[in-house]
Amino acid sequence: MTTVHAYAAPDATSPLQPHTVERRALRPTDVMIEILYSGVCHSDLHQARSEWGPSLYPLVPGHEIVGRVTAVGEQVTRLRVGDLAGVGCMVDSCQHCESCAEGLEQYCENGATWTYNSRERDTQAPTHGGYSTAIVVTEGFVVRVPETLDLPGVAPLLCAGITMFSPLNHWKIGRGHRVAIVGLGGLGHMGIKLAVAMGADVTLFTTSQGKADDALRLGAHHVVFSTDRAAMKAARSSFDFIISTVPSGHDLNPYLATLKRDGQLVIVGALEPVGLSGVPLVVQRRSVAGSNIGGIAETQQMLDFCAEHGITADIELIRMQDINAAYERMLKNDVKYRFVIDMAAFRAEQEQAAD
Amino acid sequence: MTTVHAYAAPDATSPLQPHTVERRALRPTDVMIEILYSGVCHSDLHQARSEWGPSLYPLVPGHEIVGRVTAVGEQVTRLRVGDLAGVGCMVDSCQHCESCAEGLEQYCENGATWTYNSRERDTQAPTHGGYSTAIVVTEGFVVRVPETLDLPGVAPLLCAGITMFSPLNHWKIGRGHRVAIVGLGGLGHMGIKLAVAMGADVTLFTTSQGKADDALRLGAHHVVFSTDRAAMKAARSSFDFIISTVPSGHDLNPYLATLKRDGQLVIVGALEPVGLSGVPLVVQRRSVAGSNIGGIAETQQMLDFCAEHGITADIELIRMQDINAAYERMLKNDVKYRFVIDMAAFRAEQEQAAD
Repeated sequence: MTTVHAYAAPDATSPLQPHTVERRALRPTDVMIEILYSGVCHSDLHQARSEWGPSLYPLVPGHEIVGRVTAVGEQVTRLRVGDLAGVGCMVDSCQHCESCAEGLEQYCENGATWTYNSRERDTQAPTHGGYSTAIVVTEGFVVRVPETLDLPGVAPLLCAGITMFSPLNHWKIGRGHRVAIVGLGGLGHMGIKLAVAMGADVTLFTTSQGKADDALRLGAHHVVFSTDRAAMKAARSSFDFIISTVPSGHDLNPYLATLKRDGQLVIVGALEPVGLSGVPLVVQRRSVAGSNIGGIAETQQMLDFCAEHGITADIELIRMQDINAAYERMLKNDVKYRFVIDMAAFRAEQEQAAD
Repeated sequence: MTTVHAYAAPDATSPLQPHTVERRALRPTDVMIEILYSGVCHSDLHQARSEWGPSLYPLVPGHEIVGRVTAVGEQVTRLRVGDLAGVGCMVDSCQHCESCAEGLEQYCENGATWTYNSRERDTQAPTHGGYSTAIVVTEGFVVRVPETLDLPGVAPLLCAGITMFSPLNHWKIGRGHRVAIVGLGGLGHMGIKLAVAMGADVTLFTTSQGKADDALRLGAHHVVFSTDRAAMKAARSSFDFIISTVPSGHDLNPYLATLKRDGQLVIVGALEPVGLSGVPLVVQRRSVAGSNIGGIAETQQMLDFCAEHGITADIELIRMQDINAAYERMLKNDVKYRFVIDMAAFRAEQEQAAD
């Protein structure tokens, strides 16, 4: 066992505070990673506050992890000490169901083991995430991080990046497709970068002039203000594919009307009830689907794609001790477009204090 | 011009009553059909009563038409006098948009011309449907009816049949697939017959014991009572494909939970708002789509498939003058499973009266 420094939510109502967690002794297939950067996802905040059902406390959030391998078990074959490595939303799955066999561990029929606020499959010990100085993960759930990318901006690829890459990849989006992204936040800004790199013609739906300007800077080809009825009417039946990143319940019907026949809208944000009428679906055989992060192989594919195209997230680097203030700013959408915690600095401080 | 006997709704609140309509003089590509049987679709009632926006009155409903060709224009090549012929929900479309080019006239980007309560593309004359003794339709919107099938039971294939065949065909359902149909009415009973003939393992979702017995008689392999929570739980993640025929707004979430990963639910009935949460979509990448009847080529394919498998609708043959009573029974779901008007008998009566 290794004791590592972390920040944890002690309960649903208190701020995050310094904490220590025990990382398991290295098993033959395990990789130990010294965490350099940890992205801050909105779901960290939801779970820290028990907003998705009762959380396991103390809870160490963080599932956008980039670090360097410091030890490997004797059966580890793909990673070596010193390699850059990434861990996303999952650290394990059953490995024998149909979804796992197809590399879709996120849809594991027996339930994936999440990086935090979950339980290890054998010991039932709670899992703890990336707001910590090190993590131990079985090799099959560790991805290789290309050395050429700016590391702080890589961390959000492990959740926000793969969440947008997976639907674009699954529905085979590329050159010749007209794609729209609804909402410009952590997910939306990755969606624009990835869809543009895939060769699609990309539009942002937004309500904000500031977001419109940013979208064009990020590479979007067009912006449609969803509050502009004339613009929405002009956009009718024009998109092949839409991803809605809106995190709360919202009316899908105006966006559905902008899909071509057989067009597909994919929800990646909202887990709440959404507004849907049969009409826009029936009249042009449109579809609404959901998509949840991506499998491990697809996450590696996404990182390799990002390396090839020089894509990282736009981030604001923060200190671990500023996480509570960052949560408050996140609630006001005051971040462009992802907070990333400098875990290397946090570790250095802890080591200094211990001297 | 030819004057033909019909039944029409004079306005949104009066019963249907005897009426005459003028059929246009035969154009070079036109086919004149003496109507033998006309199915009664729930949408006839909706439109007779202006429930889908203002209807054009007097309104002659009917878009499930089977008859015999009595005259053809000089450029007609596929049909001859004496042939059995069918007309469904459409009598024309723009013929130059992408959807028309792909044989998906029902999704015509310029709007299909519907068989009734619509306007002819050139003259803007109102169209009148199958509750009449004859109809004139351009050859491209007339299908050939196999001589081997029971004719009254063929009429509902032109709307109810193709509405269920098209999604099963489009999503390539066949042997090895587990299919569920929600609701057993005109649409649902065709769905069971067609999906069974395609080789799928077919389940009916219903709330009624009587419907359950009927479903098994119609060929369904299983029945699940959607009100039985334990049964619904046991059915989780078990279907590849579901078609919901429920005609009004309903909660899709319990049915979505019974789809496998990447499963597809298709709405063919409800044009109203439906209940949908992001959760069942996101957690297993499920989809909800809509589907609207089928194209003309696909309608022919469906009729040929029905001939090959001996499939017709279960119908109750009624007299034209009993249509208003039939509407009242339809509102109470008191029909197994489609009313079909004996237009040959109606014509004989009209001819006798004229003598």
